Amino acid sequence: MRVVGAAFVIGLAYAASAQAQSWTPPTDAQRCPSKWGAADQRGAGNHMKPETVLRATRLIRTGEVFELGRVLKADMPFSVGRRFEMETKRTNMNAGSNRRGSNEEIVFTELGQVGAQFDGFTHQTIDDSLYNCVKVGDVATRTGFTKLGVEHVGSLITRGVLIDVAALKGVPMLGDTYAITAADLQQALQRQKLSLQPGDAAIIHTGWGRLWDTDTTRYLKTNPGLTTGAAEWLAKQDPMLIGTDNGPVGVTPDPDPNLSNPVHQIALVVNGIHLLENLKLDDLAGKQVYEFALIVQPLKIQGGTGSTVAPTAVR
Amino acid sequence: MRVVGAAFVIGLAYAASAQAQSWTPPTDAQRCPSKWGAADQRGAGNHMKPETVLRATRLIRTGEVFELGRVLKADMPFSVGRRFEMETKRTNMNAGSNRRGSNEEIVFTELGQVGAQFDGFTHQTIDDSLYNCVKVGDVATRTGFTKLGVEHVGSLITRGVLIDVAALKGVPMLGDTYAITAADLQQALQRQKLSLQPGDAAIIHTGWGRLWDTDTTRYLKTNPGLTTGAAEWLAKQDPMLIGTDNGPVGVTPDPDPNLSNPVHQIALVVNGIHLLENLKLDDLAGKQVYEFALIVQPLKIQGGTGSTVAPTAVR
Amino acid sequence: MRVVGAAFVIGLAYAASAQAQSWTPPTDAQRCPSKWGAADQRGAGNHMKPETVLRATRLIRTGEVFELGRVLKADMPFSVGRRFEMETKRTNMNAGSNRRGSNEEIVFTELGQVGAQFDGFTHQTIDDSLYNCVKVGDVATRTGFTKLGVEHVGSLITRGVLIDVAALKGVPMLGDTYAITAADLQQALQRQKLSLQPGDAAIIHTGWGRLWDTDTTRYLKTNPGLTTGAAEWLAKQDPMLIGTDNGPVGVTPDPDPNLSNPVHQIALVVNGIHLLENLKLDDLAGKQVYEFALIVQPLKIQGGTGSTVAPTAVR
Amino acid sequence: MRVVGAAFVIGLAYAASAQAQSWTPPTDAQRCPSKWGAADQRGAGNHMKPETVLRATRLIRTGEVFELGRVLKADMPFSVGRRFEMETKRTNMNAGSNRRGSNEEIVFTELGQVGAQFDGFTHQTIDDSLYNCVKVGDVATRTGFTKLGVEHVGSLITRGVLIDVAALKGVPMLGDTYAITAADLQQALQRQKLSLQPGDAAIIHTGWGRLWDTDTTRYLKTNPGLTTGAAEWLAKQDPMLIGTDNGPVGVTPDPDPNLSNPVHQIALVVNGIHLLENLKLDDLAGKQVYEFALIVQPLKIQGGTGSTVAPTAVR
Repeated sequence: MRVVGAAFVIGLAYAASAQAQSWTPPTDAQRCPSKWGAADQRGAGNHMKPETVLRATRLIRTGEVFELGRVLKADMPFSVGRRFEMETKRTNMNAGSNRRGSNEEIVFTELGQVGAQFDGFTHQTIDDSLYNCVKVGDVATRTGFTKLGVEHVGSLITRGVLIDVAALKGVPMLGDTYAITAADLQQALQRQKLSLQPGDAAIIHTGWGRLWDTDTTRYLKTNPGLTTGAAEWLAKQDPMLIGTDNGPVGVTPDPDPNLSNPVHQIALVVNGIHLLENLKLDDLAGKQVYEFALIVQPLKIQGGTGSTVAPTAVR
Repeated sequence: MRVVGAAFVIGLAYAASAQAQSWTPPTDAQRCPSKWGAADQRGAGNHMKPETVLRATRLIRTGEVFELGRVLKADMPFSVGRRFEMETKRTNMNAGSNRRGSNEEIVFTELGQVGAQFDGFTHQTIDDSLYNCVKVGDVATRTGFTKLGVEHVGSLITRGVLIDVAALKGVPMLGDTYAITAADLQQALQRQKLSLQPGDAAIIHTGWGRLWDTDTTRYLKTNPGLTTGAAEWLAKQDPMLIGTDNGPVGVTPDPDPNLSNPVHQIALVVNGIHLLENLKLDDLAGKQVYEFALIVQPLKIQGGTGSTVAPTAVR
Repeated sequence: MRVVGAAFVIGLAYAASAQAQSWTPPTDAQRCPSKWGAADQRGAGNHMKPETVLRATRLIRTGEVFELGRVLKADMPFSVGRRFEMETKRTNMNAGSNRRGSNEEIVFTELGQVGAQFDGFTHQTIDDSLYNCVKVGDVATRTGFTKLGVEHVGSLITRGVLIDVAALKGVPMLGDTYAITAADLQQALQRQKLSLQPGDAAIIHTGWGRLWDTDTTRYLKTNPGLTTGAAEWLAKQDPMLIGTDNGPVGVTPDPDPNLSNPVHQIALVVNGIHLLENLKLDDLAGKQVYEFALIVQPLKIQGGTGSTVAPTAVR
Repeated sequence: MRVVGAAFVIGLAYAASAQAQSWTPPTDAQRCPSKWGAADQRGAGNHMKPETVLRATRLIRTGEVFELGRVLKADMPFSVGRRFEMETKRTNMNAGSNRRGSNEEIVFTELGQVGAQFDGFTHQTIDDSLYNCVKVGDVATRTGFTKLGVEHVGSLITRGVLIDVAALKGVPMLGDTYAITAADLQQALQRQKLSLQPGDAAIIHTGWGRLWDTDTTRYLKTNPGLTTGAAEWLAKQDPMLIGTDNGPVGVTPDPDPNLSNPVHQIALVVNGIHLLENLKLDDLAGKQVYEFALIVQPLKIQGGTGSTVAPTAVR
C-alpha cells in the first residue's frame, strides 16, 4: 500500500512538474506595477538596508573569506558572441630621474556579461519590455540605458545561503540537463536545516562549476539548473538575488523546447531579482559553508546591463 | 623680531621640504628581497588574514554603506591615453514562445586603470624592475604578466581610516598643488584621535574628488597629494593599501620637477603597498566617518596591472 | 504690383520646392525585384566589367594620381556614435641575433563607416528591408550579414566625372544647407562639357570638404548636398557609384524635416548604387580635373556594411 | 666534363647559400643615410611617379581585374597576438517618415597587420632603429609614430611581376620550409622570359596561399619563403615592393635558428622596400598572368605601421 501510494504521489508530482514546464510570461498588466511600486528601479535591491547588512555581518565569526569570482582571461567559457581580449601596454618608459615605468592594459569585452557576472534589469526583456514594464525603446541609447542601468544598484551585502542540490542528490555534480525543482530546493534546505528569509542571497550549488576550467565545451553545451517552477518558488521567498555555478541559472535546454531561458525572465523581468552567474562554489560546498555574508560590488557601468564581479562569501 | 623669527622658521621648513623633495629610488640591492620574502608576490596583501577581516567587521555597527566608487562612462576623467568606450548590443530579439530579448554591452577600456581603481604590482617599475625586483622582461607577455598579476590579490577587507587633511586645514579642498607632508598626516590623525595600525587601509581625503564630475580639466591638470616624505612615512606604518580622492596619489606635479610620480614607486615598487585612486570620499568626510570596514573586490584580470573597482566603506 | 508678383513667384517656388521635398519611399512591390534581377546582390556593381575598366584606364594619360582619402585619426569628424581609437603595440623587442623589433597597432573603430568611406548595401534599410528587398531579420547576425556584405563588392575601376557644383555657383564652398537640385547637376555638367554614362562614378564637389581638418563642428552640423530630386535624377543616369565631399551625401537637414537622410535610401536601398563619402576633392576641383579613372578598393569585411577606403583618381 | 663542372658550380652555390644564411644586420653607419637621402621617409615609395603609373597602366589591355585581397573575418589566419573582432550595430531604427534604418559595425583589430597586409616602415626595427636610422624612442607615441607612418605612403600603382617559384619547381605549393634562393628567383624569371625593372612590384608565388582557408594551423606553423640571400638579391633589383602569398615573406623558420625573420629587416629597415603579405595569388598563377598593373591603396592610418588592404592586379 505505501509503495503504491508513494508511486501515486510521485506520479502526481511528475505531472505537476511537466505542467510547470510550459510557462507563459505574464502580461504587462499582470506583472506591473511591481510590488516595489510603479516608479521603482531597484527591485529586490530594495532589500539592501542597514539592518540587512547587520544581519549579514553578524554571521562573520571566523573572518574566513571565500572567493566566488573567476579569473578573467581570453579562454574562459563565454556565452556565444562574447569575449575578453586584452593587450598589455607599456606606457611610461623609465621617466624622470626616478626611472619610472608604467604598464596598463587595453581590454575589449562584454564587460557586463563575462566571467562571474551580476545581472542588472536592462539585461532581459519580455516583448521588449523590461522590469516594471519600462519599454526598451524608451530607455535604450547606443551607449547604455537611461533607466535601470547597473550603476544604480550599489554594493550588496546580505545573508547568503548555499542550497546544495548536488549534495542532496549525493553527487559532486548534477547531470548535464538535470532540472532542479522547487521540491529539490526545499529538501536541500531541510537537509541543511536552514530556511530562506526575505532579502537573502539564494546561492544554488549544482557542481557544474567544476567544468569551468576543465571542459569549456561541456560547460557551455547544456547545464543543470532551475526549472521555471523552482524559479517561481524561489521568487516567492523574496530574495535579493539568486546565484549559481552555471551561466544561464535555468536548466539548459529548458524542458519545454519552445522556451528560451525563461528563468532569466522570471527573475529579472517579472520579479526584479538580480542574478549572479558562473560563481566558483566548490570551496563553500566542500567545507559545507551554508550560511555566510555575501558581498558583491558591481561596477557602476553607466546604463549597463550587468557587471563582471569578484564576489565573496565571508563567515 | 617675530617677523625675523618667522622668516627663519620658514627658511628651515623650506630647506627641509626641499630635501624631502629630492628622492632617489633605492637600488635593487637596497629594496630586495622585500620584507615579505624573496619569493613573495603579495606584498602588503599578506596582511589579509581572518583576524584582519574580523578587526574590520567588528567596526560595523550601524550597517551603513558608503559607496566609494565612480560611475564608469566615456566622459569621466582619464589619465592620458585611457578611455571607456561602450556600445549597447541587442542580442536575442524576442526569442522563443516566451519572447525573450537580451541586451549586453561591448566595452573598450584600459580596464585596470579607469574610474575608481585599484593598483596591482605590475603597474609600476623602477628601471624595468617591479616589486620584489621581478624584471619586466621576464614576466611581461602581450596579454598580461606571468607573475604579480592582479588576479592573485583577492578581495580585501580591512580596517579603513580616513585621514582628512582638508578638514585639518579647514578647507573643503586642498590647493591645486598642495603637497601633503608626513606632519600633515600625523596632525590629521591626532585631530581625529586615531592611529594607524599595520594592515589598515589609509584613506587620504584631499577634497579633490569634488572636481570629478564638475571640472575634469582642473581635476587632471594638477592635484594636491602626498609628498615622497609623506608616502615614506605612511609606508612605515605598514598599511595594506593607501587610497585617496585623486588619480596619482602623489602631489602633481611633484615639487622636484625631475621626478615622475615617485609616490607610485614608493608604494607599489619599493614597499609592495596597493593603491586605490579616484575614490569618492565626500560622504565619509562630510559625516566624519573616520573608521570603518573597507571592502574592495578587484576583478581577477589575468596578468592585469590593476582593476577598476567599486569599493565600499561600511560602519 | 511688383510686391504682389514677387509674392506670387515665391509662392510658386515654395510649392515646387515643397513638392520636391516630400519624398515617400517606394514600397517593396514598387522597387523589387531590382532591375538587376531578383537574386542580385551587386546592384550597380554589375557595371564593373573589363570594358568598364578599359574605358577608365584609357583616360590615364599623364599618370598623375590624386588621393581622395582621409588620414584616419581619433580627432577626425565622425557621425555620432563612431570613433577611431588606436594604440601602438611594441611586440618583438630585439629578438634573435639580428635584434629584430616589431610594432603594430590595435584599433577600435566602426571600420565600415569612418573616414573616406564606401557604403555597401547592408548599411541602409527602408522598414527593415535592404536592397532588393532582402529582410534584415533574415540576414543579420551578431557579426555581420550573410548576404549583401561589402566583401562581395570587389575593387571598382571606372570612369569618374567630377560634377563641380561649387564652381557652377562661383563659390569655393556651397552654403551650409544648400540643396543641390537636378538642374544644378545638369548645368554643372553642361558647363564642364561632359555627360554621364552608365557605370560612371559621379563625384559631386560641394567644397564642404575644406572644413574636414579645419572646423569639425561645422562640418558635422549641417552640409550642402543632394535633394531627393537630384538623387533620383542621378540614379536615372545609372552610375556605378555616387561620391562627394561630405558625410551624408544628401543635404542636411533635408528640406522636409520629417525625412531622415532619404538620399541614402534612394541610392543604396532603392537603386543599389554605392556611395563614397567624405572624399578629399580639393585637388581635383582646383586643377579642374573633371574626367579620370576612379579606383577604389573596399576592404573585404565579411558581412560588413561598408569600408573605410583610400580611393584615387588617376588621369 | 660538363657534369662535373655543373656539380662543382652547384657545390659552390650551395656553400655560398649556406654562408648567406648567417646574416648579420648592417650597422647604422653601414645602412644610413639611405640611398634616397638622409631625410627621406618614403624609401622605395619614391619610385611612385607619373611615368611609373603609365608604365603600369600601359599593361592593361583586357581590363581583367584579379583580386589579391582576403576576406577579413574572425577566423582567418593571424600572427600571434592579432585578431579581427566585429560586432554589427543597428543604429537608426526606422527613423523619419521614410522609415530609415542604419547598420554599421564596431571592429577591434590590429588594423595595420591583418589579412592581406601592406607593411610600412615603422613596423620593423634593428636595435630600436627604423628605416633611415630613425630611432623608435624619438618618434613613437602611444597612438602612432610621428615619422614614417603609413599615412605618408599613398596609393601605389606600378608594374607587377609574378615570380612563380612553385611553377619553376613543378609543384602547386613549395614544401613547408622550402628556402627560396636568389637562383630560384632568377631561374623563375628566366622561365617566364621576364626581368625586373627598378620600381616594380615583385610578387613571389609559393603556392602557400592555398592553405589560407583550408588549413590555418599549417599556414601559420612554418612557410616556404625567401632566404636572406634571395631578399638581398631582390633588394638589389630596386623594386617598389615585394609581395607574396604567405605572412612572413621570409622562409619560416629561417635556416639559421638564431635569426628572427631577417627578411623583414632587409626589406623594411635596411632597404626601405615595402612588403605585401598574405596575398591571394592562385588566379594569377593559374592563368599565368606574370605581368600586370599592381594597384594597392593602403589606408592612411595616422602613424600606423601598415594597413590591411585589398590590392588588385589588372591586365
